[in-house]
Amino acid sequence: MPEILEKPTVWQNIQRVRAEAPLVLNITNYVVMNTTANALLAVGASPVMAHAQEEVEEMAALAKALVINIGTLSAAWIDSMMKAGLAARQKGIPIVLDPVGSGATRFRTETAQALVLNSAPSIIRGNASEIRSLVLAEQSTKGVESVHASEETLEAAQVLSANFGGVVSVSGRTDLIVEGGRTIRILNGHQMMSRVTGMGCTATALTAAFAAVNPSYLTAAANAMAVMGIAGEIAGEHCAGPASFEICFLDALYSIQEADIAHRMKMEIV
Amino acid sequence: MPEILEKPTVWQNIQRVRAEAPLVLNITNYVVMNTTANALLAVGASPVMAHAQEEVEEMAALAKALVINIGTLSAAWIDSMMKAGLAARQKGIPIVLDPVGSGATRFRTETAQALVLNSAPSIIRGNASEIRSLVLAEQSTKGVESVHASEETLEAAQVLSANFGGVVSVSGRTDLIVEGGRTIRILNGHQMMSRVTGMGCTATALTAAFAAVNPSYLTAAANAMAVMGIAGEIAGEHCAGPASFEICFLDALYSIQEADIAHRMKMEIV
Amino acid sequence: MPEILEKPTVWQNIQRVRAEAPLVLNITNYVVMNTTANALLAVGASPVMAHAQEEVEEMAALAKALVINIGTLSAAWIDSMMKAGLAARQKGIPIVLDPVGSGATRFRTETAQALVLNSAPSIIRGNASEIRSLVLAEQSTKGVESVHASEETLEAAQVLSANFGGVVSVSGRTDLIVEGGRTIRILNGHQMMSRVTGMGCTATALTAAFAAVNPSYLTAAANAMAVMGIAGEIAGEHCAGPASFEICFLDALYSIQEADIAHRMKMEIV
Repeated sequence: MPEILEKPTVWQNIQRVRAEAPLVLNITNYVVMNTTANALLAVGASPVMAHAQEEVEEMAALAKALVINIGTLSAAWIDSMMKAGLAARQKGIPIVLDPVGSGATRFRTETAQALVLNSAPSIIRGNASEIRSLVLAEQSTKGVESVHASEETLEAAQVLSANFGGVVSVSGRTDLIVEGGRTIRILNGHQMMSRVTGMGCTATALTAAFAAVNPSYLTAAANAMAVMGIAGEIAGEHCAGPASFEICFLDALYSIQEADIAHRMKMEIV
Repeated sequence: MPEILEKPTVWQNIQRVRAEAPLVLNITNYVVMNTTANALLAVGASPVMAHAQEEVEEMAALAKALVINIGTLSAAWIDSMMKAGLAARQKGIPIVLDPVGSGATRFRTETAQALVLNSAPSIIRGNASEIRSLVLAEQSTKGVESVHASEETLEAAQVLSANFGGVVSVSGRTDLIVEGGRTIRILNGHQMMSRVTGMGCTATALTAAFAAVNPSYLTAAANAMAVMGIAGEIAGEHCAGPASFEICFLDALYSIQEADIAHRMKMEIV
Repeated sequence: MPEILEKPTVWQNIQRVRAEAPLVLNITNYVVMNTTANALLAVGASPVMAHAQEEVEEMAALAKALVINIGTLSAAWIDSMMKAGLAARQKGIPIVLDPVGSGATRFRTETAQALVLNSAPSIIRGNASEIRSLVLAEQSTKGVESVHASEETLEAAQVLSANFGGVVSVSGRTDLIVEGGRTIRILNGHQMMSRVTGMGCTATALTAAFAAVNPSYLTAAANAMAVMGIAGEIAGEHCAGPASFEICFLDALYSIQEADIAHRMKMEIV
């Protein structure tokens, strides 16, 4: 059904997030909690951060989407991720998994793989090395930042999508969003995004917010990456360095207009 | 004693914080640790963040005020909150409780209620749904952000204050600060404050700093909310979105002058 | 060998960090994780934050330097710090210990002392009261922020350096970097640096990045403090308060030029 995206729905998706302010439950890493909460608020969603086993199921029951991000993983949190995943699945809300650093250590790779199996995420969003690690169990990474998309990555994303039956969203110079035989490429973005920690995690959080109000998770994932890239371009025109870039980026998420999307978006649907 | 506030003491309170740089111990949530530490430094206080059971009593013994904030709660932290609360009580320093998300899950509501009973906070500072949950054990919330004050909220705050015998400070479009039969309303603020994560937690931290150097906890709580609102108004005049708003807000906390308070403050004492 | 620093190597050190983007593993505190990750990215390094016992050894094996920072300590994290320290030692990469708050509580002082004994850090970087606590087991501190260097501090740094056989870097109005009989003083900096949380932790992270690509840990530690001070001076010329200062500071870390160093650096080698 490639026609789904013939008329892009980015602006409609933003308007729905702003109108409905969906509650997004984040079980995420310490480094980005503040940033992703602010990004969700900026785009119009309502963030909650919680991780206690005693409450994640109740929180998931209140939420419209769940983010599971393993960036600063420890054993106790895995149980909460599993519990919240199960509750979210039963409720039928989208689950977005960010396998941060998968491939870098056995602990992360195995946890990410277990989360894919047990939580049945709707969308997996990561960088190329993280996505490849879920297919090939590769044990190599250069940190948790960056890695460019390539044909090899596209193949890995397609295999992963087929294996677990959901959407795979790979960030990089070109973003790839894959589901079944369909592929969307986003060519927006700015080089400064690789110099700010947690931009990938922010992409994951926005993906969840968009999926909360969009029945097509493929479209939601693509729309979120387009907004990331466009906000990055707007920010890149005004900043003096990575810290002011981050401020401008979050401000742009808040003030982004239909015209920004119309004039800037570079989305290719294959 | 309604005359206490006939001549507002906001500026004197700021000056005392700047002069004495009181040490404020924060057992608080991961999302706002950085922000509230910076807000405390900006206003002139000395923040410490610590949560280990092995040290919270010693830290409380060094501190001039204690913040207990349950925003990203887990079981191990509750013990530390209880221990620190007891040590603070024995020392006679103010304890400010922020029941973040109380009402959203049973775990938070019950923990908040247990902290009220066992730690005997001097001041409880929350939004309307959190405050109501401590009176009515309501099980409903829309996330941890926002909720407007109302007559129902005022009543809940009065009941809560009477029940536990301390000050209740409710943030909202109009802030309500209640103790016994007395009510103070703060009409300052800016709509952008609801688009930045942790503004409530910052209000709690500032309340603790003000209470550290002010024998009247009612006055301290009102003064802190006035400073929050005034700094928010100053920031709102200069910002392009929520991220630049937060920067301007923290800068305003640092540079706020007597004239800003004189010209802007809207405090009603009932 | 005082000639090591006759021709300062600050600019060369920055260029090597930018060229090699060394992976720096941070087992650090919740308050500064975001800030120090961004500071490492700004200066050109690759940060990883991880703390699980299951993975810190593997992460250390991938890294080019290790930061151990006890700012928000708890028991489970100490084991990970010890494990990572041992792995880093076996691999021969630099370990930089930041004994945040040592001297404030017995738990921190004893943990910091145990880490010095068991992990054999290459560099200990702290403020004056923290450094003195490792020599004198002093039990006093005014929070975790600031304290000025003095002759007493220099003596403590020299004793500590002799005792554990590594570099001691003390931040303050004048920074002192000591190893064996050698002392370097850095006179750069800006008063606003004491009004932003985590500037000391950022200094520690940059010290690790510089040590990752510099065989002289004394020089690396001095170069990092010089860059901190110079970026602080650049930021201080443009900021309206502590929050905008922090943004300008991080931007300056990213954009610092050879001429900034040549014109501003005040390094005294004794």
